[in-house]
Amino acid sequence: MTAKPLVPLVEYDAAPPAVRDVYDDIMRTRGTDWINNFWKVLAHDPALLKRTWEDIKAVMAPGALDPLVKEMIYVAVSATNGCEYCTYSHTASARAKGMTDAQLMELMAVVGMANETNRLANGLRPPVDQQFEPR
Amino acid sequence: MTAKPLVPLVEYDAAPPAVRDVYDDIMRTRGTDWINNFWKVLAHDPALLKRTWEDIKAVMAPGALDPLVKEMIYVAVSATNGCEYCTYSHTASARAKGMTDAQLMELMAVVGMANETNRLANGLRPPVDQQFEPR
Amino acid sequence: MTAKPLVPLVEYDAAPPAVRDVYDDIMRTRGTDWINNFWKVLAHDPALLKRTWEDIKAVMAPGALDPLVKEMIYVAVSATNGCEYCTYSHTASARAKGMTDAQLMELMAVVGMANETNRLANGLRPPVDQQFEPR
Amino acid sequence: MTAKPLVPLVEYDAAPPAVRDVYDDIMRTRGTDWINNFWKVLAHDPALLKRTWEDIKAVMAPGALDPLVKEMIYVAVSATNGCEYCTYSHTASARAKGMTDAQLMELMAVVGMANETNRLANGLRPPVDQQFEPR
Amino acid sequence: MTAKPLVPLVEYDAAPPAVRDVYDDIMRTRGTDWINNFWKVLAHDPALLKRTWEDIKAVMAPGALDPLVKEMIYVAVSATNGCEYCTYSHTASARAKGMTDAQLMELMAVVGMANETNRLANGLRPPVDQQFEPR
Amino acid sequence: MTAKPLVPLVEYDAAPPAVRDVYDDIMRTRGTDWINNFWKVLAHDPALLKRTWEDIKAVMAPGALDPLVKEMIYVAVSATNGCEYCTYSHTASARAKGMTDAQLMELMAVVGMANETNRLANGLRPPVDQQFEPR
Repeated sequence: MTAKPLVPLVEYDAAPPAVRDVYDDIMRTRGTDWINNFWKVLAHDPALLKRTWEDIKAVMAPGALDPLVKEMIYVAVSATNGCEYCTYSHTASARAKGMTDAQLMELMAVVGMANETNRLANGLRPPVDQQFEPR
Repeated sequence: MTAKPLVPLVEYDAAPPAVRDVYDDIMRTRGTDWINNFWKVLAHDPALLKRTWEDIKAVMAPGALDPLVKEMIYVAVSATNGCEYCTYSHTASARAKGMTDAQLMELMAVVGMANETNRLANGLRPPVDQQFEPR
Repeated sequence: MTAKPLVPLVEYDAAPPAVRDVYDDIMRTRGTDWINNFWKVLAHDPALLKRTWEDIKAVMAPGALDPLVKEMIYVAVSATNGCEYCTYSHTASARAKGMTDAQLMELMAVVGMANETNRLANGLRPPVDQQFEPR
Repeated sequence: MTAKPLVPLVEYDAAPPAVRDVYDDIMRTRGTDWINNFWKVLAHDPALLKRTWEDIKAVMAPGALDPLVKEMIYVAVSATNGCEYCTYSHTASARAKGMTDAQLMELMAVVGMANETNRLANGLRPPVDQQFEPR
Repeated sequence: MTAKPLVPLVEYDAAPPAVRDVYDDIMRTRGTDWINNFWKVLAHDPALLKRTWEDIKAVMAPGALDPLVKEMIYVAVSATNGCEYCTYSHTASARAKGMTDAQLMELMAVVGMANETNRLANGLRPPVDQQFEPR
Repeated sequence: MTAKPLVPLVEYDAAPPAVRDVYDDIMRTRGTDWINNFWKVLAHDPALLKRTWEDIKAVMAPGALDPLVKEMIYVAVSATNGCEYCTYSHTASARAKGMTDAQLMELMAVVGMANETNRLANGLRPPVDQQFEPR
């Protein structure tokens, strides 16, 4: 089976300055010395690369929610959508932020239940209870 | 537009004993005096009602993850799947467990980003980096 | 909330001959005297209307699978995708072909389980067992 | 491309008693002498393993619907969600229960049509016909 | 059925300066004198509002693709995901940019076909042909 | 990982006349001398093969929309659904019709944004604005 990306990977050494600037910021922010393949495909469009990275950096920073909680939410969405790359990359990120095996399994249990009851509700269509209406 | 469920709601007073037992356990566990419509449609199949409630009770109980975190993961999946009923009911549950408006907005920001990058990865197909492989 | 379709409904009396021919065939095939709204929006593109109807007629006809089984599969997919219109229309069709409440509930139980385990597999990524490989 | 699961497979010989009990019940119920990888990843959380297996056993047992029909509904959902593991495993199960090639192809034809018309309805938004409203 | 948003709409007159700045830029960019509800819910998180608007403004601007083509792609994704709000809003935007009824119907025909064949491929799993591999 | 299709590929030399006729029409229409694997799995059901090919041929032909635009819409849906085969095959088709790398990247940017805002709308549920209602 092919594992070729739809556009070639843009490696650091061959990258134009606008891409290198983003790559440098990614490594600095994460304290790593390598760039993962997701960014190397986005780099074909430097504006898309820069925008996506800056959005991710802002959204995943500490805020009202804990960064580990955010990574687990990312994993929950990626498993729901069936995105292989994102499942591997964000599970790795969550583990790097301290997620234990027990937490991963419990996360998956919630994701499974939610996907199950979402379809029971979609298929049987109970009306939204008045008590659930927002203020 | 119709808001009728696909099967009639099974109200407490008309419910057979096996259903009442589950309804009673739901109210006792939650400390409430009413049953939401989701359970009233499942009640057409008392075995399905009982199984689903016991699974939810076990999965959503405190464990390796905080109950509020679990509710927010439930909301993340429900928004991703577009389940209207589940979005209203689990957002209400998360709020009852203390979720603030700032946390809801941040949760949605993560859900939005994850759905965006899931498709960038699905459309451009970067190979999974060796560094992300599980131990 | 709006319930307006994105294009106006093409009613029989205002329909061009190519549309009427399809409407007539739908009513004749189904033994009914009315046309449901799905066809009335497709009718804005008579070629799309005709092609979709002829495909449905061929696919849903008795064959290697029983027509009621086919309707239940249609409901399963519609609940999984969260399509409100299709859930109501195909559940009604399945009931017209004899689906009981017990069968509907059991169908939903399978749909729920499948959606749950699909995500457990997507999130934990077990390799496909050699024993499951097709001949 | 990686095929490594996100958690290591729990093999029978290394499994704790609570896991072995479930593995034994799976093999006894199915009349087989091996455990497929799906259960081996769930086994990292023995409670999740047990709950999921008991739900599957109850839901897929003969009832108002034929077991083969249930397997085909499982395949329909798995193909709709794009779950590779589940598509292989449940197609294999359906074949073991007697599904012919002609039935598989017809099943796929229905799944394809449903996915097509679900989006025609979602994109054009015809109102639900009064005739489709449940009793 | 409820149509209440999960957070109250932030109206212009009650909006803080950071929100008004974005609202002003939306109206100026679009040449309109009103703000649609999507932005009024995002406004609960002014940073999310600003980031999302600036991304949309950049992504939907004329570039390698025509703005009308971009709107139609937006509609295609929204119909595939079953997002009611987005289907109405982006179909309206596409019409404002000149989309005809014939183009809308043809767009839907492509969306329907793609959703159908996506599942035929997911369910039958043909290997990717060597000829389709990117350079 | 397995790459075996769920049914064996039907090669030209082993195909019955009804399948060869479709294969011939595919090659004639496309000006190629080979058949891609998608059709070789559908060929197990000659009626499904013929119907799907004739639908595709009609839908993807020049009409109110440009054929390249149609291919890009196909890619947008396939990336949204996470269909690997369709992403590779329709990206290749779009390139054969002239899609540049810049157009592919811009297409992906729109697909990503749409998937993001679809979920922001699904999670926060703003009511559809009256101004977006169709005529």
